[in-house]
Amino acid sequence: MNISIILDHLNGLTKPPGSLGRLEELAAKLCLCQKTLKPQTKPRHIIIFAADHGVTKEGISAWPAEVTELMIKNIVSGGAASSVLANTTNTALDVVDVGSFGQPIDKGNNYKNARIANGTANLAKEPAMTRKQFEQVLQIGSEEAECAINNGAQVVAAGEMGIGNTTASSCLSTLLCDVPVESITGPGAGADDRIISRKIQIVSDAVEKVRSQSVGDNIEDIASVCGFEIAAMAGFYMTAAKLKTIMVIDGFISTAAALIAEVLSNGTRNYMIASHCSAEPGHKILLEKLQLQPLLDWSMRLGEGTGALLVMPLLDAAADIVSKMATFESAGIKQ
Amino acid sequence: MNISIILDHLNGLTKPPGSLGRLEELAAKLCLCQKTLKPQTKPRHIIIFAADHGVTKEGISAWPAEVTELMIKNIVSGGAASSVLANTTNTALDVVDVGSFGQPIDKGNNYKNARIANGTANLAKEPAMTRKQFEQVLQIGSEEAECAINNGAQVVAAGEMGIGNTTASSCLSTLLCDVPVESITGPGAGADDRIISRKIQIVSDAVEKVRSQSVGDNIEDIASVCGFEIAAMAGFYMTAAKLKTIMVIDGFISTAAALIAEVLSNGTRNYMIASHCSAEPGHKILLEKLQLQPLLDWSMRLGEGTGALLVMPLLDAAADIVSKMATFESAGIKQ
Repeated sequence: MNISIILDHLNGLTKPPGSLGRLEELAAKLCLCQKTLKPQTKPRHIIIFAADHGVTKEGISAWPAEVTELMIKNIVSGGAASSVLANTTNTALDVVDVGSFGQPIDKGNNYKNARIANGTANLAKEPAMTRKQFEQVLQIGSEEAECAINNGAQVVAAGEMGIGNTTASSCLSTLLCDVPVESITGPGAGADDRIISRKIQIVSDAVEKVRSQSVGDNIEDIASVCGFEIAAMAGFYMTAAKLKTIMVIDGFISTAAALIAEVLSNGTRNYMIASHCSAEPGHKILLEKLQLQPLLDWSMRLGEGTGALLVMPLLDAAADIVSKMATFESAGIKQ
Repeated sequence: MNISIILDHLNGLTKPPGSLGRLEELAAKLCLCQKTLKPQTKPRHIIIFAADHGVTKEGISAWPAEVTELMIKNIVSGGAASSVLANTTNTALDVVDVGSFGQPIDKGNNYKNARIANGTANLAKEPAMTRKQFEQVLQIGSEEAECAINNGAQVVAAGEMGIGNTTASSCLSTLLCDVPVESITGPGAGADDRIISRKIQIVSDAVEKVRSQSVGDNIEDIASVCGFEIAAMAGFYMTAAKLKTIMVIDGFISTAAALIAEVLSNGTRNYMIASHCSAEPGHKILLEKLQLQPLLDWSMRLGEGTGALLVMPLLDAAADIVSKMATFESAGIKQ
């Protein structure tokens, strides 16, 4: 199954060639990844990785770190945007806590406690995590992808919950894209100008420190400004690609994780579909770096996998177009 | 139910205010149109109005007029893009033939023969239809909207099939938006440069003739360059708005019809949701004239209501967000 067979098939369907625009491109991508002209987009599974960030001590978020714990509970109990959209789009959802501050919850069969630690260290003062911790949490993400895919998921996605994680993502983006800190750092979940200024300073100092102290170990550099949930997502993506499974990328933080995955495992991006371009300024830069064109441009900035969930039905539409439309031949129309 | 009650409700849900971007705007629009905080987007119904155009004799399309008849059959029998997407998105679909050239089909319980005539007259030579014909077909469209809504449709859409109808739509757009013909005339279903040049000439001459012969009767001017399916869509939209029902607008032709509806019945646009901005150059101009911001920008140019159908699940997501998410209060999170 190569792209020319797929395009020939799409061009033989009862519509002017290419007239469904990006829906056809999406259909072609599904076919190419799954090596079939009858791509499947169900069942599907999203894992929301949750963790806390030591850097929240620096006052870089509009929300206190306690909100991570409360939102984990809210997602698990079905009240969060991600829980609602997972239900709307028939996507299985699990929360995996890879390192939050609060009490682990004991209710909910779609929750797993897999903490590496209670939050990362404060990246403004010291490395956020050790190389070993990074590798451990990468492995957790990897196992979640493997498990979801072994259980039949045809499409997977990862989402995140972690107050402070746009700060870590801005550090990662600055480090990996080599762009000015100001161009990549934004309000996250609602920071005002004063908080954003502080955030820019912290990101700038942290990245400067990583660069000056780097011994050329990519993983150690990334680990020192990463978040547990971000590393878990990176591991998730790397394994999904190895298992040749389509993954839908969410917003700024998810895309920072996607870039880590691509850096650590070249070609991971081939299985990625970018759901949307968010309101966070760094997101566009990351998407360009990954050469991914987002499906929606809706100024979303919630995270939790909400953008990825929202576009799932658009994948269904693309799959149905390619597998269910009549051909010109069968409809008796001369091209 | 006014907008401030709706925004207060949206801002009390467990997410940073406004962080779902356009999904929240869409949710607010659904609430505002339906005057509820629990909007419904199902059941829903699309009518595909089909007709032929006398102007096809002038060689303004990449496809022969016979394709209209073949595509009516293809839509009714389930093989067309619109039939597939209606199925994917759980949208009831009916085809109403308001004036095609071919033989009426006798099979299919989702087909209706409601022809005004066998195709319009050639707008390059004479008025495409009389004022009376225009009013008759407007009424057919109106009755279809009324019937769908009386049968319970919470959201309606109209689509079209008619070889040559981008030429009529370019005439209508030039006439109603007062912009240069060249900026609004494009390849339609795949015309090459030679055909486009001819199309521009025909549109230019036809609009010039309408303007020079106008006696100030808006309806007569519109009728002289309209298509039966376009007029039917306009009637459909006018009545849907009168019945306070959300309608999803499709591509260039659908939006030309939407503009006619707004011109003839001010305020119809308040119930419109623009599904996408198509590859056809005039579409953006029409959307701006109607002050509608499209949900997708996917370079689609197929028509048949495909764009409107594609976005239906996005409306479901918006409705679910507003009606099913937890509030900060219920989740125990201090704002």
